[in-house]
Amino acid sequence: MSLLRHVRRCNDYRPERFLPLFLGGARIGLVRRDHAEALRRFPQVFAVADDAVRLMKIGDFAALSAAVDRVVEQLVADGLVPKWRNEFFAVSTRWGAAPLFKLDRGAIAFFGVRAYGVHLNGYVRDRSGLRLWIGRRAPDKKVAPDRLDNLVAGGIGYGHSLFETLAKEAREEADMPADLIVRAVPVGAVSYRMETREGARDDVLFVYDIEVPSDFVPRNTDGEIAAFHLMAAGDVIDRVRASEDIKFNVNLVLIDFALRHGLVTPDEPDYLDLIAGLHRPLD
Amino acid sequence: MSLLRHVRRCNDYRPERFLPLFLGGARIGLVRRDHAEALRRFPQVFAVADDAVRLMKIGDFAALSAAVDRVVEQLVADGLVPKWRNEFFAVSTRWGAAPLFKLDRGAIAFFGVRAYGVHLNGYVRDRSGLRLWIGRRAPDKKVAPDRLDNLVAGGIGYGHSLFETLAKEAREEADMPADLIVRAVPVGAVSYRMETREGARDDVLFVYDIEVPSDFVPRNTDGEIAAFHLMAAGDVIDRVRASEDIKFNVNLVLIDFALRHGLVTPDEPDYLDLIAGLHRPLD
Repeated sequence: MSLLRHVRRCNDYRPERFLPLFLGGARIGLVRRDHAEALRRFPQVFAVADDAVRLMKIGDFAALSAAVDRVVEQLVADGLVPKWRNEFFAVSTRWGAAPLFKLDRGAIAFFGVRAYGVHLNGYVRDRSGLRLWIGRRAPDKKVAPDRLDNLVAGGIGYGHSLFETLAKEAREEADMPADLIVRAVPVGAVSYRMETREGARDDVLFVYDIEVPSDFVPRNTDGEIAAFHLMAAGDVIDRVRASEDIKFNVNLVLIDFALRHGLVTPDEPDYLDLIAGLHRPLD
Repeated sequence: MSLLRHVRRCNDYRPERFLPLFLGGARIGLVRRDHAEALRRFPQVFAVADDAVRLMKIGDFAALSAAVDRVVEQLVADGLVPKWRNEFFAVSTRWGAAPLFKLDRGAIAFFGVRAYGVHLNGYVRDRSGLRLWIGRRAPDKKVAPDRLDNLVAGGIGYGHSLFETLAKEAREEADMPADLIVRAVPVGAVSYRMETREGARDDVLFVYDIEVPSDFVPRNTDGEIAAFHLMAAGDVIDRVRASEDIKFNVNLVLIDFALRHGLVTPDEPDYLDLIAGLHRPLD
């Protein structure tokens, strides 16, 4: 099967089904047209027009966050936002810009707000060649239970920096000590936009690689990963190619790894489409 | 200065100034509107309409190549195609597809045909850290004389494979033996589309990295490179940032190298724009 199918699935998005969500002149999200209807009930917070939804300029960070939060509470009660995670993501116009307000993680897809995550490829290079540490997600995870995952991955919550998130997740998910995670190297990012049942995921995943010592064995401490396996990198990519065993967006991170390490080569018919497809423009 | 300026310069392209060039249902090039007028003189080869230029289905590969070549000869005589390189590039609908015809390299920009090249980052990693072999282009090069360049770079000519081109250029430009160049690792590609005096460059550069032994010293044998220097990778990126010393598109290859090796990090304000900007969608 084609590696490109994973890129296509993560970019399965029909613009005509969505309205841009604006705050002032800046687009900050994407609201499905039927969801926009549900926002008409909150005219003091959202102005719903035929071509856009506008978040009213209610006030500062705290005022905006509180106003949107009250709407989210109602959407949760209505069953339009699936759960109340009590974990917040920052909403801003672009990476690095000051946050405009914070939004419950459970409502990110409803509002189609861009979310940022960090994924860590942990590898060993020795006489056995290049091998990757791959986790199997716990069977009780809400998203992608039992699927294979990177060594470490997590969303970047409001108030946390990228590296702080990486170090925290590395400690909790893989028991990586602080003096090891500092060796992780930022190697780029993967971006995609996909429709989901809840709305749209407009995701950027920052990617790090780390070469871990051969005696390092990851050990999960937060119950999110059931087991870790050290697999030949070529076998991992075969698995990406031939199966649906891997969490949907982790396939993209692994294809990016394969492209950067020469495991997928220009002989691949879709080589250039893969490279372009992993880096959706951030419009 | 911003690294992003190099990406912007290589993507300085105004679509409204160009017409698509079609062969059958497939777009194979981009012709500037004023150049399209010049093609009206060849109605047996090109049909020029308000919204497109169409190459007539004259016959097979040889017939098409010969017909276009006769037009190119006239364009050279008119001064619209700058020179007659007697080196051919393949024209096809996409990378890996069968060539439809071959086109003189000198006419590639006039017809805005996608061209493919290969660039090699040669590096040494030792106690001095990460260092890059950088070439200084000969003062008599027509494109970018005296500018800094990758260790090896070249266009992929008709009838030559990607790796064959890399190996040939590595031998001629840097005196790299065959048993060394096989260690080069394909690590992705950079794409851009820019207007030039001659028309448009719609380029894809396949990128390879090679870690060379510390006793390897490149030596140019074809007169294209005046000298090679082993420079600290950080200094090279500083040079990309602060100067115009480097050949325009080599800046992009070096930024890609810096992103993949953690020399440019997510702290860079334009980090995500750089990543997206290096990988123009191949529409």
